[in-house]
Amino acid sequence: MSVTFRDATEADVPAILSLLIDDKLGATRESTRSDAYLPTFREIEADPNNTVIVGELDGEIIATYHLTFIAGLSLSAMRRAQVEGVRVASRLRGQSIGEAMFADAEQRSRAAGCKLMQLTMNKSRTDSARFYERLGFTPSHIGYKRDLT
Amino acid sequence: MSVTFRDATEADVPAILSLLIDDKLGATRESTRSDAYLPTFREIEADPNNTVIVGELDGEIIATYHLTFIAGLSLSAMRRAQVEGVRVASRLRGQSIGEAMFADAEQRSRAAGCKLMQLTMNKSRTDSARFYERLGFTPSHIGYKRDLT
Repeated sequence: MSVTFRDATEADVPAILSLLIDDKLGATRESTRSDAYLPTFREIEADPNNTVIVGELDGEIIATYHLTFIAGLSLSAMRRAQVEGVRVASRLRGQSIGEAMFADAEQRSRAAGCKLMQLTMNKSRTDSARFYERLGFTPSHIGYKRDLT
Repeated sequence: MSVTFRDATEADVPAILSLLIDDKLGATRESTRSDAYLPTFREIEADPNNTVIVGELDGEIIATYHLTFIAGLSLSAMRRAQVEGVRVASRLRGQSIGEAMFADAEQRSRAAGCKLMQLTMNKSRTDSARFYERLGFTPSHIGYKRDLT
């Protein structure tokens, strides 16, 4: 299966939104009005350190992830790459598309000079835990969240 | 104790570096050459979504943290604030400077339109876990890291 990964365009936003919703946690917390996402998409697109990527198969968007490069002083001024919003269409899971997506993320991260990749995963996603550990991620940290609404 | 928080300037970098090193994990992984940190500091300073903040007491830098605002599509295009590199001078710990620092972070995050604050903490920092939970952070996620060096 040959999935091509590329930067998302504005026209991809409805398909990205469908993928965000196609998820047990995402289903409860996304709006279905894609125009509500456009101003944020444009802000991401204008920021060289922030990119939404889509995976295309036979002309259809079937995967997405969000990659942010963060310059920081700690760890000897190490640049890090942070992954968010990882989704593969539910009908295509278990076919190594996630592995191809993380290979794309790793290549982009290395090209940007990042020496660390990081992500947080909701503890309820036990299947994803096995996936990330297989890819070489270490569960060394606790991810804390605080709602400001 | 009245600590003032403000954006760091280039002249603060050696003091920030001393704070990063004044830590059981930081001691092993920072360089002591502050000029090696300057290009990264300048990059952070030029990015409106990325800020290093210092806490000053009687003209001395005694605390620091790093705050990054991240625009993302997930969670209904929620803007989030991420905290990194949190340090209080070891001789001043236990005097609520951390609480004042997070109040400053919360105020900046709300002013930037963020609806979520997040951070990851190395599992070995058991004292900090109590601190974050007291501040209203929920340990809902696993923080994965992958070294690219």
